[in-house]
Amino acid sequence: MNSFKVKVLSLNKEIEVAEGQDLLQAMIKSGVNIFASCGGKGVCGKCKIKIVNGNFVTKFSQFISEEEKQQNIVLACETQPLSDIVVELLNPIDEIKKLKDVFITSSYFDKHNLEKKLVLDGFDISPIAKMIHLNLPSPSIEDYVSDTDRLVTYVSQQEKLKVIIDDYSVVKTLPEILRVNNWNITVVLVQKYLFPELLYEICEVRKEKRNLYAIAVDVGTTTIVVTLLNITDFKILGSVCSINKQITFGADIITRIVYSEETSGLEMLNQKVLETINELIYYIIAENGVDLRDIYAVVFAGNTTMIHFLLNLPAKYIRREPYVPVVNRPPVTVAKQLGLMINPEARVYCLPLVASYIGGDIVGGVVSCQIDVSDDICVLLDLGTNGEIVVGNKDFLVAAACSCGPAFEGIDISSGMLAVEGAIEDVKIVNGRVDYKVIGNTKPIGICGSGLIGLPAELYKAGIIDRSGKFNKSILEPQLQKRIRQNEIGENEFILVGKEHTGNNRDIVISESDIQNILRSKGAIFHGLHTLLKYLHLSFSDIKKIFICGGFGSYIDIKKAQILGLLPDIEESKFVVAGNTSLLGAILYTLSQSARDRIYKTQQKMTYIDLSSMSMYMNEYSSTLFIPHTDLSLFPNVTKYLSK
Amino acid sequence: MNSFKVKVLSLNKEIEVAEGQDLLQAMIKSGVNIFASCGGKGVCGKCKIKIVNGNFVTKFSQFISEEEKQQNIVLACETQPLSDIVVELLNPIDEIKKLKDVFITSSYFDKHNLEKKLVLDGFDISPIAKMIHLNLPSPSIEDYVSDTDRLVTYVSQQEKLKVIIDDYSVVKTLPEILRVNNWNITVVLVQKYLFPELLYEICEVRKEKRNLYAIAVDVGTTTIVVTLLNITDFKILGSVCSINKQITFGADIITRIVYSEETSGLEMLNQKVLETINELIYYIIAENGVDLRDIYAVVFAGNTTMIHFLLNLPAKYIRREPYVPVVNRPPVTVAKQLGLMINPEARVYCLPLVASYIGGDIVGGVVSCQIDVSDDICVLLDLGTNGEIVVGNKDFLVAAACSCGPAFEGIDISSGMLAVEGAIEDVKIVNGRVDYKVIGNTKPIGICGSGLIGLPAELYKAGIIDRSGKFNKSILEPQLQKRIRQNEIGENEFILVGKEHTGNNRDIVISESDIQNILRSKGAIFHGLHTLLKYLHLSFSDIKKIFICGGFGSYIDIKKAQILGLLPDIEESKFVVAGNTSLLGAILYTLSQSARDRIYKTQQKMTYIDLSSMSMYMNEYSSTLFIPHTDLSLFPNVTKYLSK
Repeated sequence: MNSFKVKVLSLNKEIEVAEGQDLLQAMIKSGVNIFASCGGKGVCGKCKIKIVNGNFVTKFSQFISEEEKQQNIVLACETQPLSDIVVELLNPIDEIKKLKDVFITSSYFDKHNLEKKLVLDGFDISPIAKMIHLNLPSPSIEDYVSDTDRLVTYVSQQEKLKVIIDDYSVVKTLPEILRVNNWNITVVLVQKYLFPELLYEICEVRKEKRNLYAIAVDVGTTTIVVTLLNITDFKILGSVCSINKQITFGADIITRIVYSEETSGLEMLNQKVLETINELIYYIIAENGVDLRDIYAVVFAGNTTMIHFLLNLPAKYIRREPYVPVVNRPPVTVAKQLGLMINPEARVYCLPLVASYIGGDIVGGVVSCQIDVSDDICVLLDLGTNGEIVVGNKDFLVAAACSCGPAFEGIDISSGMLAVEGAIEDVKIVNGRVDYKVIGNTKPIGICGSGLIGLPAELYKAGIIDRSGKFNKSILEPQLQKRIRQNEIGENEFILVGKEHTGNNRDIVISESDIQNILRSKGAIFHGLHTLLKYLHLSFSDIKKIFICGGFGSYIDIKKAQILGLLPDIEESKFVVAGNTSLLGAILYTLSQSARDRIYKTQQKMTYIDLSSMSMYMNEYSSTLFIPHTDLSLFPNVTKYLSK
Repeated sequence: MNSFKVKVLSLNKEIEVAEGQDLLQAMIKSGVNIFASCGGKGVCGKCKIKIVNGNFVTKFSQFISEEEKQQNIVLACETQPLSDIVVELLNPIDEIKKLKDVFITSSYFDKHNLEKKLVLDGFDISPIAKMIHLNLPSPSIEDYVSDTDRLVTYVSQQEKLKVIIDDYSVVKTLPEILRVNNWNITVVLVQKYLFPELLYEICEVRKEKRNLYAIAVDVGTTTIVVTLLNITDFKILGSVCSINKQITFGADIITRIVYSEETSGLEMLNQKVLETINELIYYIIAENGVDLRDIYAVVFAGNTTMIHFLLNLPAKYIRREPYVPVVNRPPVTVAKQLGLMINPEARVYCLPLVASYIGGDIVGGVVSCQIDVSDDICVLLDLGTNGEIVVGNKDFLVAAACSCGPAFEGIDISSGMLAVEGAIEDVKIVNGRVDYKVIGNTKPIGICGSGLIGLPAELYKAGIIDRSGKFNKSILEPQLQKRIRQNEIGENEFILVGKEHTGNNRDIVISESDIQNILRSKGAIFHGLHTLLKYLHLSFSDIKKIFICGGFGSYIDIKKAQILGLLPDIEESKFVVAGNTSLLGAILYTLSQSARDRIYKTQQKMTYIDLSSMSMYMNEYSSTLFIPHTDLSLFPNVTKYLSK
């Protein structure tokens, strides 16, 4: 087969392109970090390059203007060279919206001492992909075993693992690479199957050892977080997050499933989530100077619907009784098949799902919080767009779900935002003054989940809103009075920060309907927990620990959340703000075999309870839409505190 | 995605073609049995069709003449419809050279009573692919397990096997197919891995049960034999054979390996063997009216080099000391990846190889002949283009190889041919008259391996040739005298059948150099066996059974083969003409798990001895180039018999 040389100007690098291969594929294979969020399907229009010199053939694209066409600007994924060519990359890293390092957990993981922490918490260290060096004995007339058998035998013996080679492209290159390197080679091993047996596969044989990277992803309905891990020396290199681009097709899961049933709907949702993930990956590997070819594993934790969309699987029956997913333990797949812009041979894993409304995010969360090995009864509250509640310990695990809306992720809230730099994560209103705490200590640009959870308590204590969340007609403090105004649609809103003090020259406000959104969210969660405990014949006092999980921010004021009526009125010491335990679950899955084992065990042990089928749940929900609740006896301490 | 309708005129069938898909792929997927020996790469030019109506786009091809172009004749593999179209198939079955049912074994297998025979010989019945029917319980609010888990769990339980689903295209279609068929479905299971664990994979879920077919192939250096098996009710439907098209690149293995090292050489050899196999498959499934989509497994037995070429693996190091193959236990692959024109998802298996010159054909042969479970010491002689010799029993197995040339397969012999209809399989010369026996009792058109093995003894006994294989100057019988003539290159040849009595109007002859070829072949085999036994400190009398294997024909006269000096001079009752035991090995592998287990055990137990490294072998070879040998004491009975 013929091939052409492609010189990439800005990198001063020369790569090979086989005849008939497109430039994007060739660049990915050669480790040129080019931006193409759709994975090369020609639908995102982001992989623009300029052909400086040489012959080529390209397809018409709506993303290329007439003017760009004149300048030989093309989509790399739609262009094949017809001679040696020179190209210029057009999408430098600065053009991507800069996303700051995001919050993962309050205290669980020390970013720079991951290994120690894992061991301390009882997890073994055995990443899902590993790179090992081998010095094979060379063959002889007496030792004439085949190259493949020689390699597999020695890898199995050295690593004490079941190992196979499955891919003929690896087999085919073996004779040369073994001999050229005088039988000193480096092998990349990935987990091929985790059940019914643990089986590793040799997915690459290379010359020398390099750093090995993996990516852990929390695929939320609203927010997607990507963490880059160095799995050679166990370091978290950083995390970035952004809004799931699927959000244009609906804020909640049900709307998106309805959309997925339209023609090409599923494909569109699949494409959007891949775009989001590819952009985040592109950004974080570029920032850390990591070669995309060194990423050999991606681990996803997400709710059942998100994982179905990610894998391009029909989600139709998730919303139809009896609510059955297509898969619970998704087969391992390959990056190039899924459309991820990393090493094409990287393996893709998903944390296992329990039921249509309890996904791998929750399974991973339970293990991250060590609930699966706890003697005491614990509760996990996951405050995502879908709220999930788990009650249990090492002997039993029961889970339920409720739709609580994206308020805690800062969506559908006037000044809401993700828990990233510039987000207000706590508010205090004292003597008519509004104080706040901003992530990254910069000027604020919005308010994130933790800020929103604390806010109603402060507004209520300051007399700005009543127990139903409505603004009081007469507010005592004149300083506060003047912060109230009507917004464009005639609704009352409270100005938390005037635009003169914000980072984006826009007022940060909270409106009456924002507060109603928050009340609905907290009501769903509290009522779900209350109902589930009743079903299990447990009371709040039986709970020894409550883990509060979600990507809403590092700071949650428990007392304020109790005043809101989100959290039950029990001792503050029983609460643990656990952070993004879904992401943490994905990280643990990436790094530790005992974590993977516990995750699959947890998945099998967990029972899903359908709250919506209980009349108790449906009937009593409305009583939770007050601060803290219509039944004040459920909140004796809060009541006492507020009456003081 | 858009799709177009394609009406196939002769079949009165309508199929769907997705936009961008070529017609050949669409036809294969829809079970239209179209002839395309290259598997759709555009290089064989055989998948010609005529577009009767509709718009299409096609690539230029050297196989389409200007006249054909005018008539809208195109290659299906290079053509995509742009609208609904009507096509006409141009390659009816009659155009393929008709190949008659070929000989597999003398007595081992009763074609119509395979199952009974298998059990009788101690093999269990468990084919490598199976189709099972399931009546799954439908899900409920309490039983909400995912579709995939439900299916895998019930299949595993019912079949008592380790089962997985690995392919997302199967996962994706699951929800609809389960519900449309009210949870009554048929599942096709194939073996995914045979080691380190036995693992089955669900490769298709379909509506109703149909017959399941498999194909067993003996990939010889010279001859390829394809057998079609109904693995639902265990019937051999037929076998066809033809010359391996690689033969244009050399008759022997070494020449082909040298060619494979040239640019595109390996690809060409790979393509040629696939062409041969696809043509044979095409022929036999058409003749039996089998839908190509019902073929779910193909099993190959062949020598190490042939299997490397088939899998497109470099064979370079097979001919270089220390003679190491790339693989001994080739990973299971998929028909569409290899380029076989059957169900694209069919799994492809290869019998395991022992060393560079002992392949799966020999391993399969040992198990077919039950040598691996024998108490007595047995010998297997495989008389292919490469000669292989195995000595052993249930406790040890030693193998050696010798290059004996393709004479026993009828190649490089003036009137040589495969053992198919029209081949002379035995010759008698009595009182100056030449008598012969023809396969199929038709007019002869050539002479096959068994005929060639018997011929020198008859020529020698009639005084036509001397012990060195040269024609005698003076032949006693005048009838025979007039059958001798000089051929075009001035060499003596003996006319066995005048053209007036042949089926192709050509004389059937044997020349002096033909006889030399036969002597070289027999010499290599006999000397190999003799040397190997000496190395093992065994004598001919220690051998309790000798299995004579190969595709040379059903009839071998042991006495004549002893006179030739091919077979050792021991009791005739010790010889078994076993037929094509390589093919038989592939059939056993297809049908029985205990056979597969024994085949892998045999492969691991067998030791390869390199004869060429023994000085004894190289020095004494020339003494075998006489009838029967220079050392007549090795053939006491033959000597006695001839002197009578």
